[in-house]
Amino acid sequence: MSKDFPNRKDNYSQWYNDLVIKADLAETSAVKGCMVIKPYGYAIWEKMQAILDKMFKDTGHVNAYFPLFIPKSFFSKEASHVEGFAKECAVVTHYRLKNSPDGKGVIVDESAKLEEELIVRPTSETIIWNTYKGWIQSYRDLPLLINQWANVVRWEMRTRLFLRTTEFLWQEGHTAHATSEEAVIETKKMLDVYAEFAEKWMALPVVKGVKTANERFAGALETYCIEALMQDGKALQVGTSHFLGQNFAKAFDVKFTTKEGKQEHVWASSWGVSTRLMGALIMAHSDDEGLVLPPKLAPIQVVIIPIYKNEEQLNRLSETANKIKTSLEKHGISVKYDNRDTHKPGWKFAEYEFKGVPVRIAIGPRDLENNTVEVARRDTKEKSTYQLTDIDIKIVHLLEQIQDNILNKALNFKEENTYPVNSYEEFKQKLEEKGGFILAHWDGTSETEQKIKEETKATIRCIPLNNQQETGACIYSGQPSTQRVIFSRAY
Amino acid sequence: MSKDFPNRKDNYSQWYNDLVIKADLAETSAVKGCMVIKPYGYAIWEKMQAILDKMFKDTGHVNAYFPLFIPKSFFSKEASHVEGFAKECAVVTHYRLKNSPDGKGVIVDESAKLEEELIVRPTSETIIWNTYKGWIQSYRDLPLLINQWANVVRWEMRTRLFLRTTEFLWQEGHTAHATSEEAVIETKKMLDVYAEFAEKWMALPVVKGVKTANERFAGALETYCIEALMQDGKALQVGTSHFLGQNFAKAFDVKFTTKEGKQEHVWASSWGVSTRLMGALIMAHSDDEGLVLPPKLAPIQVVIIPIYKNEEQLNRLSETANKIKTSLEKHGISVKYDNRDTHKPGWKFAEYEFKGVPVRIAIGPRDLENNTVEVARRDTKEKSTYQLTDIDIKIVHLLEQIQDNILNKALNFKEENTYPVNSYEEFKQKLEEKGGFILAHWDGTSETEQKIKEETKATIRCIPLNNQQETGACIYSGQPSTQRVIFSRAY
Repeated sequence: MSKDFPNRKDNYSQWYNDLVIKADLAETSAVKGCMVIKPYGYAIWEKMQAILDKMFKDTGHVNAYFPLFIPKSFFSKEASHVEGFAKECAVVTHYRLKNSPDGKGVIVDESAKLEEELIVRPTSETIIWNTYKGWIQSYRDLPLLINQWANVVRWEMRTRLFLRTTEFLWQEGHTAHATSEEAVIETKKMLDVYAEFAEKWMALPVVKGVKTANERFAGALETYCIEALMQDGKALQVGTSHFLGQNFAKAFDVKFTTKEGKQEHVWASSWGVSTRLMGALIMAHSDDEGLVLPPKLAPIQVVIIPIYKNEEQLNRLSETANKIKTSLEKHGISVKYDNRDTHKPGWKFAEYEFKGVPVRIAIGPRDLENNTVEVARRDTKEKSTYQLTDIDIKIVHLLEQIQDNILNKALNFKEENTYPVNSYEEFKQKLEEKGGFILAHWDGTSETEQKIKEETKATIRCIPLNNQQETGACIYSGQPSTQRVIFSRAY
Repeated sequence: MSKDFPNRKDNYSQWYNDLVIKADLAETSAVKGCMVIKPYGYAIWEKMQAILDKMFKDTGHVNAYFPLFIPKSFFSKEASHVEGFAKECAVVTHYRLKNSPDGKGVIVDESAKLEEELIVRPTSETIIWNTYKGWIQSYRDLPLLINQWANVVRWEMRTRLFLRTTEFLWQEGHTAHATSEEAVIETKKMLDVYAEFAEKWMALPVVKGVKTANERFAGALETYCIEALMQDGKALQVGTSHFLGQNFAKAFDVKFTTKEGKQEHVWASSWGVSTRLMGALIMAHSDDEGLVLPPKLAPIQVVIIPIYKNEEQLNRLSETANKIKTSLEKHGISVKYDNRDTHKPGWKFAEYEFKGVPVRIAIGPRDLENNTVEVARRDTKEKSTYQLTDIDIKIVHLLEQIQDNILNKALNFKEENTYPVNSYEEFKQKLEEKGGFILAHWDGTSETEQKIKEETKATIRCIPLNNQQETGACIYSGQPSTQRVIFSRAY
């Protein structure tokens, strides 16, 4: 399989595309820009969903479901939101087809034209706040902490599997609060949830920060984000959490009676992560031999492969293999015993390596005699012989080691590729040579940000939270600056 | 709450609508025909999803995700499918909006017209079989056992929350097999899964049967269904499983190489249940005092309510209440301790009764002295005093009893309302008086079926599987018949 598989150095972009397709994660579909998420890819997404969903519930949130369609007029209600969202989107104009007069197929029935067009949701603030109006009357109804798992559609011109697709899957949290402070606390809390998920489960170190005005969500007062670094030195925005102030409450007239009997507009947050997480996971850890998955998100954590010459050998190996499988499953480890006779062991080795199964156990007749198995770990490709005694405990520890190792590797990569520059020349040179998170002084203006973007394609990824304050001069304008911000080229 | 709540006898339809809304399960939205599923309703749906998903996985299925949009031309590929499905549906014709010239809001950008319109999926056979073409080459690739959790849209003129909405949530299984036999076995297996789910979890007895040609899914050779009886004597189709033969494989040219090296078209099944299950659950068990939920699907299984006069009393009650809560949670029971001081105990009693919480535990100062609590069950409204010793075990048993009781009540209702008739006069009379599942002889023709439907609004719900064979005469035409079929008015 790796024969015609590109390596990261030669063509990182092609490497990613081929990896997604050849590892059976996703593929393009007959509908431009929309992807099919294949069972192996979807199994990873399901694990992510289950963990995130539990984290949301543990922090007091409940799930609900709002309509796929949004009346066009809703987008005009929040002034900046319409600019950011209502443009490139799927528009439903009719509700019926009819047989074509020429007898070939179906055509749109022009008599079934909607009075008002419906937009397939690109995000749900408008329809949700329109609904919240009926749910919120008193301070007793607050806070409202609701999440939705859904598909959304943004009509993208250039798409890439998982990273940017016309339709994608995501969750969107939409919360309502009595005070500004509470809404800000919620916004930051969910950013922390995302960062914890990325590090603990995805083995993906992230920077938590706040976006500049330019990069803010349409309708937000403040957009917080987590940013990760990919192996080609480009940044990927992994998740965002927005403090929306009273913008949507005002747009949809959502007021509540305070304890003191006054009428006030509600304060809001919204936050989301999407199937883009899949792209981050794949890009951050994989190598020239295929996918590398952190054990905590791997659909198959351990694969057992028998090496045999005849049925009788297979039967004896299967007995031991199934014992190992059962003992591992007692620890909650997902194990596949691949005893298919349609494929040779060598083919299976290559297959599971490419698909990123963290641990491979091979077992042959000689192993049976010696009471051993051969254990190979995907991350370092090391092989060892393990005695069968307490094999379950050993594998549990090995999986933990692999998870830690993948995280540490990513942490080291991030640290090595996060560095300060002090002049625009150095900035441009380092951006070309190395990429990464470049820490540079910036004068705080949108003009400078825009100019740097036009000249170098680098954007301000974020102003890190709890950023160190230091006096300096903007690398572009020379104007005084009080802190460094993170520049990077980004996906 | 029950003051202005209609009862079932006076107005069953209004009773249902009010129940769904007042119990905070769902509500209508700003988009005609689309519903908002509220957190309490969604929590029930999530439980259903989790259980069904496990049942699907235990029977060898995996999840995947296919695009929301389907190119219009796909619907014309399977001749009967286009008749059944491509008509009343949401049609996406444009992909961009622009600012209105009058400065008021946004309008459709006519220059952004799609070359081929996209249909929001009403069901996914076409897009999935178009995808399967790339996945299936050899018998080694079969069977393909895939399920999708998704939203679908069918442009319904008359909608009712959960029972019939323009957008609804569902799962759709789509399987591919090497032989007709295998596909039929799969189709029936999934019907069994649905029936087991309905009885064991929803406490809803169902009849398993096969649909007549008239009622068959567009594109299927055979449609199997489970049908349940609601309290007003009307039937509700709860789930369907279709044997699709080679229709979609032929329409999308999906062939495989057999073990013998021949090229053959693949055999298919598809099967689905939707948020309509929520409607069935609500309608089947609830009463004039509100929702009745089987414990296995109740988001809150036990609520504990303290009855106190002052803070000091509350503190002492809370200590015991929290001990009870913890001991129940160890058994996996979901418990809410409602110690809010914003609402009186009487209000809380009414609230949880209306919302169908299966068990209510009330605890007051006198209970503390006596080491007791008052336990009320929602299904029978019986109250008992329980000693605190082994309270957890007692409640576990009580919840089992409630689940059994709700099922038995529904079973009895179904049996009492399933009966034979032997003439068309009797048929019409009983249909008006009592409704229910009417067992009648039918001559097997679509004409008779259609006539009876026109004259009485009753349809053939199904021909029960393993139906008893007996000679008789069709109640309508007098023609000979070999078995009785189930007639009913239906939702």
